[in-house]
Amino acid sequence: MNETIEGILSHYSVRDFKDEALTEAEIALLVKSAQAASTSSFVQAYSIIGVSDKALREAISEVAGKQPYIVKTGQFFVFVADLSRHHQIGEARGAETDSLTSMERFLVATVDATLAAQNMAIAAESMGLGICYIGGIRNDLARVSDLLQIPDYATPLFGLTIGHPTTSSEPKPRLASELVYHENHYQPKGIQDFNEYDDTIRDYYAARTGGKRVEGWTDQIERSLKYATRLDLKEFLASKNLGKK
Amino acid sequence: MNETIEGILSHYSVRDFKDEALTEAEIALLVKSAQAASTSSFVQAYSIIGVSDKALREAISEVAGKQPYIVKTGQFFVFVADLSRHHQIGEARGAETDSLTSMERFLVATVDATLAAQNMAIAAESMGLGICYIGGIRNDLARVSDLLQIPDYATPLFGLTIGHPTTSSEPKPRLASELVYHENHYQPKGIQDFNEYDDTIRDYYAARTGGKRVEGWTDQIERSLKYATRLDLKEFLASKNLGKK
Repeated sequence: MNETIEGILSHYSVRDFKDEALTEAEIALLVKSAQAASTSSFVQAYSIIGVSDKALREAISEVAGKQPYIVKTGQFFVFVADLSRHHQIGEARGAETDSLTSMERFLVATVDATLAAQNMAIAAESMGLGICYIGGIRNDLARVSDLLQIPDYATPLFGLTIGHPTTSSEPKPRLASELVYHENHYQPKGIQDFNEYDDTIRDYYAARTGGKRVEGWTDQIERSLKYATRLDLKEFLASKNLGKK
Repeated sequence: MNETIEGILSHYSVRDFKDEALTEAEIALLVKSAQAASTSSFVQAYSIIGVSDKALREAISEVAGKQPYIVKTGQFFVFVADLSRHHQIGEARGAETDSLTSMERFLVATVDATLAAQNMAIAAESMGLGICYIGGIRNDLARVSDLLQIPDYATPLFGLTIGHPTTSSEPKPRLASELVYHENHYQPKGIQDFNEYDDTIRDYYAARTGGKRVEGWTDQIERSLKYATRLDLKEFLASKNLGKK
């Protein structure tokens, strides 16, 4: 197994960082790594906001559930699905830009942004840094969009906090590959096929919490079903002229 | 610069592969690498279909624009945004599953699937394999979904073809980082700020086509605006109970 795959397989999220800013050279290398990812039809439909301003980080952290690792970190990045450059080019050329408002284009921009983000995450970990994705910014996208002055035809998707970790950990066990990988056709599983994984996850949480948290994966998923969260997303996207048709 | 970042920065898409299937061990390592990626709230909301059957590859290739590198490749993977496991768990527990139909959940599943895919892509390249993403399967998602027997609450998103390359190439120049990376606030650019990049891309195409293709990046984007493609995506997603509200 090579160094790159070893790095990929030892990933875990880090939620406590030293108060040590990434250097400009580190940030430049992370951004360059992000940009090297594949992009659909070469549209490069994303932007990255690096939030170094502490007050701005505090404000975003308020939205995301007061996570301290958004504020105390090496750098806090927000990944933006961005069709605003394409809109700008269309306007400058007098071209029709209505095609940018489709769900397909929003999907392309989302995938582009996410491929770039994961390149950055892997590059960061290879540099000995820790990472954590922050979906919590979607608790109030309108607020985050205002704070970062995101234009129309663009939307923040998630944050990525990267810094020098204070602690180390171990990867969290994933679903057995037979439950995720299918040969030629999707093979539906029975509910009992999750039992073994439930045991694994129960043991994992029990060991990490001294027996305080005892919950299988399916329990966790069942609990999550109760909360229909962020139901304003569709409307927010439409307000940005995204995913309208 | 370490080996992982060197690998990331030397990425280019490969569109011609040897007729040599990946081994089971290679596929297992690629899937394991994919699964090691971050996942939103640990929902692991994706599946991967490995298409080894040649007739099935041919049928998917028909949808995607007859790309030969879907058929003649090491393995052809389709990444699926998959909330069907979560639906199954909800049903088994008698829980309300309506929350799964939201745009937020579809976005979570899309990001999860894409993070996993990019892990697989980087792992593959580190093994000396070549990769190419295939958005063309979205030309007819209903057909691809039928071919792969994808259940409700799940949808194919894109393909990823991975194999032993017959040729080598160089990375394609990306937008200048100043056009993509913003400090604290989104900084709108002027249309003239793309001029230098247009020159770079014109030279890039001219050199690769012996002067036959002369087109800047903004020309390419302008041309793409004319085609409002895949306008059935929203309706297809709804037919799968995804992104409905």
